[in-house]
Amino acid sequence: MTERAAEHPIEPWALRETGLDLDRMAQAESLFALSNGHIGLRGNFDEGEPFAIPGTYLNSFYERRPLPYAEAGYGYPESGQTLVDVTNGKLIRLLVDDSPFDVRYGDLHSHERVLDFREGILQRDVDWTSPAGKRVKIRSRRLVSLTQRAIVAIEYVVEAVDQPTRIVVQSELVANESQPRLSADPRVAAVLENPLEPVSQHGDAEDVVLVHRTRQSEQLMASGMTHEVDTPTRFKVDLDIREDWARNTVICELQPGEKLRVVKYVAYGWSSLRSETAIADQVAAALAGAQFTGWNGLVKQQKEFLDDFWDAADVEVHGHAELQQAVRFALFHVLQAGARAERRAIPSKGLTGAGYDGHTFWDTEGFVLPVLTYTMPDAAADALRWRHSILDQAKERAGVLGLKGAAFPWRTIRGQECSGYWPAGTAAFHLNADIAEAVTRYYCATLDEQFMTDVGVELLVETARLWISLGHHDRDGRWHLPGVTGPDEYSAVADDNVFTNLMAAKNLRAAATFAAKYPAKARDLEVDSEEEAAWRDAAGAVYVPYDEKLGVHPQSEGFTGYAEWDFEAYRDKYPLMLHAPYFELYRKQVIKQADLMLATYWCGEQFTAEQKARDFDYYERLTVRDSSLSACVQAVAAAEVGHLDLAYDYAYEAALIDLLDLHHNSGDGLHMASLAGAWMALVAGFGGLREREGKLSFDPALPDGLDGLVFRVRWRGVRLRVEVQHHQVTYAVHDGPGAQITFLHVGEEVRVTDDQPVTKALTKRKPLLPRPPQPVGREPMSAVTKHPREKHLAGEA
Amino acid sequence: MTERAAEHPIEPWALRETGLDLDRMAQAESLFALSNGHIGLRGNFDEGEPFAIPGTYLNSFYERRPLPYAEAGYGYPESGQTLVDVTNGKLIRLLVDDSPFDVRYGDLHSHERVLDFREGILQRDVDWTSPAGKRVKIRSRRLVSLTQRAIVAIEYVVEAVDQPTRIVVQSELVANESQPRLSADPRVAAVLENPLEPVSQHGDAEDVVLVHRTRQSEQLMASGMTHEVDTPTRFKVDLDIREDWARNTVICELQPGEKLRVVKYVAYGWSSLRSETAIADQVAAALAGAQFTGWNGLVKQQKEFLDDFWDAADVEVHGHAELQQAVRFALFHVLQAGARAERRAIPSKGLTGAGYDGHTFWDTEGFVLPVLTYTMPDAAADALRWRHSILDQAKERAGVLGLKGAAFPWRTIRGQECSGYWPAGTAAFHLNADIAEAVTRYYCATLDEQFMTDVGVELLVETARLWISLGHHDRDGRWHLPGVTGPDEYSAVADDNVFTNLMAAKNLRAAATFAAKYPAKARDLEVDSEEEAAWRDAAGAVYVPYDEKLGVHPQSEGFTGYAEWDFEAYRDKYPLMLHAPYFELYRKQVIKQADLMLATYWCGEQFTAEQKARDFDYYERLTVRDSSLSACVQAVAAAEVGHLDLAYDYAYEAALIDLLDLHHNSGDGLHMASLAGAWMALVAGFGGLREREGKLSFDPALPDGLDGLVFRVRWRGVRLRVEVQHHQVTYAVHDGPGAQITFLHVGEEVRVTDDQPVTKALTKRKPLLPRPPQPVGREPMSAVTKHPREKHLAGEA
Repeated sequence: MTERAAEHPIEPWALRETGLDLDRMAQAESLFALSNGHIGLRGNFDEGEPFAIPGTYLNSFYERRPLPYAEAGYGYPESGQTLVDVTNGKLIRLLVDDSPFDVRYGDLHSHERVLDFREGILQRDVDWTSPAGKRVKIRSRRLVSLTQRAIVAIEYVVEAVDQPTRIVVQSELVANESQPRLSADPRVAAVLENPLEPVSQHGDAEDVVLVHRTRQSEQLMASGMTHEVDTPTRFKVDLDIREDWARNTVICELQPGEKLRVVKYVAYGWSSLRSETAIADQVAAALAGAQFTGWNGLVKQQKEFLDDFWDAADVEVHGHAELQQAVRFALFHVLQAGARAERRAIPSKGLTGAGYDGHTFWDTEGFVLPVLTYTMPDAAADALRWRHSILDQAKERAGVLGLKGAAFPWRTIRGQECSGYWPAGTAAFHLNADIAEAVTRYYCATLDEQFMTDVGVELLVETARLWISLGHHDRDGRWHLPGVTGPDEYSAVADDNVFTNLMAAKNLRAAATFAAKYPAKARDLEVDSEEEAAWRDAAGAVYVPYDEKLGVHPQSEGFTGYAEWDFEAYRDKYPLMLHAPYFELYRKQVIKQADLMLATYWCGEQFTAEQKARDFDYYERLTVRDSSLSACVQAVAAAEVGHLDLAYDYAYEAALIDLLDLHHNSGDGLHMASLAGAWMALVAGFGGLREREGKLSFDPALPDGLDGLVFRVRWRGVRLRVEVQHHQVTYAVHDGPGAQITFLHVGEEVRVTDDQPVTKALTKRKPLLPRPPQPVGREPMSAVTKHPREKHLAGEA
Repeated sequence: MTERAAEHPIEPWALRETGLDLDRMAQAESLFALSNGHIGLRGNFDEGEPFAIPGTYLNSFYERRPLPYAEAGYGYPESGQTLVDVTNGKLIRLLVDDSPFDVRYGDLHSHERVLDFREGILQRDVDWTSPAGKRVKIRSRRLVSLTQRAIVAIEYVVEAVDQPTRIVVQSELVANESQPRLSADPRVAAVLENPLEPVSQHGDAEDVVLVHRTRQSEQLMASGMTHEVDTPTRFKVDLDIREDWARNTVICELQPGEKLRVVKYVAYGWSSLRSETAIADQVAAALAGAQFTGWNGLVKQQKEFLDDFWDAADVEVHGHAELQQAVRFALFHVLQAGARAERRAIPSKGLTGAGYDGHTFWDTEGFVLPVLTYTMPDAAADALRWRHSILDQAKERAGVLGLKGAAFPWRTIRGQECSGYWPAGTAAFHLNADIAEAVTRYYCATLDEQFMTDVGVELLVETARLWISLGHHDRDGRWHLPGVTGPDEYSAVADDNVFTNLMAAKNLRAAATFAAKYPAKARDLEVDSEEEAAWRDAAGAVYVPYDEKLGVHPQSEGFTGYAEWDFEAYRDKYPLMLHAPYFELYRKQVIKQADLMLATYWCGEQFTAEQKARDFDYYERLTVRDSSLSACVQAVAAAEVGHLDLAYDYAYEAALIDLLDLHHNSGDGLHMASLAGAWMALVAGFGGLREREGKLSFDPALPDGLDGLVFRVRWRGVRLRVEVQHHQVTYAVHDGPGAQITFLHVGEEVRVTDDQPVTKALTKRKPLLPRPPQPVGREPMSAVTKHPREKHLAGEA
């Protein structure tokens, strides 16, 4: 349908869009979204129109909506939570003489947007002649401050090119923007109409503050703006305030070559507890602070913050410029999602779109937190502290379900279970073990004792209690978890899912270990030695199904006996869930996303190398990757069993998921788990990063297509730089004097100090079995084909 | 809460209510419902108020409503169908001087209703003094004609007792009656407000006809009425017609001892195809026909119809008067549900209430049709012809699900799948085998070749095709059905449900057998010998899980390894589905309703006697009977394994389900399957009726509490009377000269002719194992306790 794809030239530190493709606008709005984890702005045009999905989001600011059921059942949640598109503060409309600036009219000589990963600024350059023949150049630069978390700032410059031109700039706050309905796909979030009720409006010559409240959830929010105007000519400013909007109008007449520069500071505040006055004041204070710092100051702070981030987190990919760009794009967005979330949730789409209603899933603990743990550990701790903040709701939910401990919500904004389909919600209990895994992972990487006593031990204990109430011993003493749903969403409510069983056992062991390590905390939580013993016993007796005849692990009990999916018949029908009933997907051997493969990664010590190779070979043929959580895990698993080129393809797919819109829904928001997964694919896949019995461990190996890979890892306060080449790897401490670190290299203990990098020779990894095929039509794109992105885009045109 | 239960004295041929208990009104409305399978009237008072649930139903006359989903999925039905409460024609209001007759005001000296099972008439006698002191006696007699299926007739007689009294009788038709909302139980049907849109009104001094149309489904219906007035005094008649009602007013002044008699004829017509005029004319014609027959004629026809029915269907229970009454009550309502359904569906509540939205489930083929097959075989054939009439929709549904053949709807009125919860709807494929079983059962009992070529063979073939597309062979050649839901609704989406696997195999064998028997029909259906072979092969290779260690069949693969339900913790929480999530019910050993037990009954030849005994013993301890489909099957299974007293208790429970309101929802309509199951419990349980390889078979045994049991069975045009006593059984042909019948008695072939009854001695049946316990608090009521009904009612008071 597209006539021409917008072009994204390959460059190392930026995403640039050199053309304009209105059919791909939703995707571009997500790619160019700015966020600090607290506030999120989609990459909508300054002038508001055209748009695909307008979006301004505040972390955890939600509206409640009823969840309807054709046939209700006990324990079904009655209401859900949806992320709200709040008052739009990024609006700056422009009149050129009498013509409104709109890219769909007049002559657009050039239109370029660039998102710089080191500056954290979205810049837009437009050269346009109005239908009446007046030419202007516009440059806007937009940032969501990483250092002043309540602040958005925009520098908007318009220049008359060749004739005297009357310029009107209208800078606005607009609540209750009209929303499109983009898709009938049930995964796309429900759209809410007019969610905001006006509460009060305040304004003077300097600032405007609008206060609104959501109708059902009664959340208060305030948005405010203030401006600086700079132009060599005379100008007039006018302010107009209504219930649902405020407009600051700047009028002037520019001579050719003259510019009007408007700097707009926007601030947001919101709360479910604080008063209207408090929130309005907080916004006014934030505006004053931003104005005090000034545009240049904000730009400088942004750069410093990002320099610090990249210094600790950058991944260098030598030999594949496109993957290099994609990985930095990915890391930049993961940073944006998590940097300032600060004890609020990190949603599966960050704050780049309202897809999945803006909900947080296990994507956070399973995919995003591993990256943050090793690059920005404080952000990982904050996300887990958020989990702890909803512990009471999780305990209540467990009670409703007749279980003990905590049952964390499968999808939520504020802690209430919002899943309206229990086989893929309630039954997917593995989320709780994923949280426990994130807790121990974080602790091992930081030895943050305060964190453990504050929240970590309690999270481990309450999730362990859930597992004990869920499992049972059979007559032979084996411990089972029947009727649960593992990661793979094309299976559900199955018995003894290997991943879930192993992760539950790991959770139980961790709870026992840390309860023993923190006896006072354990006493507070009423853990006694009987309970600890029960945890260890269940973990020790966990049943892991194994198909002796095939020599592979069934994903769940009986799985390998199911009929194989007819991949041929469905070759053009992906995602399968839109073309086949759950019933049919669940009862056949077809896999949406890595499940047993994730077990071989996170619980690797429970599998022999041969088992991993045979399991990989078996499941690779069945996995269709209709989930964005799959490719990255398959990359790690493929690399471990020696299919390095295949791992490379999957790493490429994970990293490019949104840049190539591989799931055709990037417009609803970016896939944070897959973007984080790009890091996982490279660092855990080719770097072989694991945590083994509390020790950092590496086992590097590069695919033929790469010349080298450099990544950095934070471990217990020290930054390690790992440079992988085909025949060797060099480990160097990346911190000042005195820093040192001990870890395992291919099982051998290595100590590196700041003055003594260590280089180890690498031997080529050989797979036990040949490279397996994927279901027909579901092979990953090749990472090494020339110009793959252009090829892909051409294929869609 | 009730102060005093309405009394139902025990008598053999009627249900009498001697008091009035307004708190149990909904139940009484269901118990006293009249129907012919075409039209149904709840037992609402003539005067309309008070009411619990007003109800006038026309078979298959429905409204469409959206089925909402919190998270939709592929293949979920988008709209459902709900039985509509149509224009109320049974309304006859009475004014006594200025006081409206209302049982809640004035003095009610006596109020008695009696439903006579041999007359098919609901009679009501009232002796009432108005608040103003005027005493009247009222007798109304109401029938829904079994011979003129469009007709309802009411004879209404009011008598002035001791003073001259002005009497106004208002006989009405009222559309869109206001509806109560009785319950938050999701099982209770959705209530529709104002479903009828007025189309036209016709009236003259004789007749009134109102035509309405449903708003969404655009079904047309007409209701009409005409009257005969008979009184010794002067009277005046007045007619008033509006869009939603019509009123015929009769006014007179009665002297003490004088009576006013009004006979009201009401007719209904409806269609989704025919025109307004056609339907209105059809109603006028029906009214003319009824008036021509006259009240006495209708009463006489009704009696003749019922005499004929009872002659072929009566079950005599000697030694338990209450059970005797209950079984006749049950048979009467089964007759009412099926007698004149005539190629429309038989809903699970008949036409006695709109519970379950008025839908038809597998209750029809599994429970109601066995009774009809052996007592009114034409009605059974009609019900199966209805199934055939929705075959196109079932084939379409199979296509949507990616399957072959026909997938009949789990719940429907007109053929569209209306189930909004797929694990208990779509996945419960056994319905298709239940239909096939009903086809072969009917054929064996009748040898109706025309039926087989018209519809029977096709139903067998298309359901067999479904099973082939659902099943698969494993590497060892065993044929499996993973991920299906069997009868037990506290398990779902399980692998290799024994009942489903055995029934599917039976369906496949039947399809192969009848395709071979009707080669021309098979050719029409494009069945070739390869397909027949595939059916036989799959049936022969069917996998039946068996737990060798426990020596029992798991209900489904792995079931016996699940944790046992904590019956103690839930002892006061029934039905469990309102107190525990599906998730938890599905993964534990707890059973809502007979499932494996039904397999031992319908597929008895696949089990050894010892297996049946051990399976019964195992499952009895786990079955909570939260479904009304359970007790009757448990009765049959218990009787077979020799627990005759336990079978007796279950037979009692099945028969008394609505008279005692055991499931606390009889007010939403009667439980046809359980009522039919009362017959099943007695005839298949104590009579041992089975059909074995095309032969009728008996194996009688009585519980200690019964003195004798007599039942009648139609078999290939001959009626057999079976009289069971403790030490002998007598088989006699119940038809005229020349009639004869051959069958098996305890495996031995017996031939009985009209002049030669055969008596066989019986030996006492001994159970292999002791009587098993049930889950705590879920023991059946004892059938032999003195005055059990009074005891039960007292217990609730």
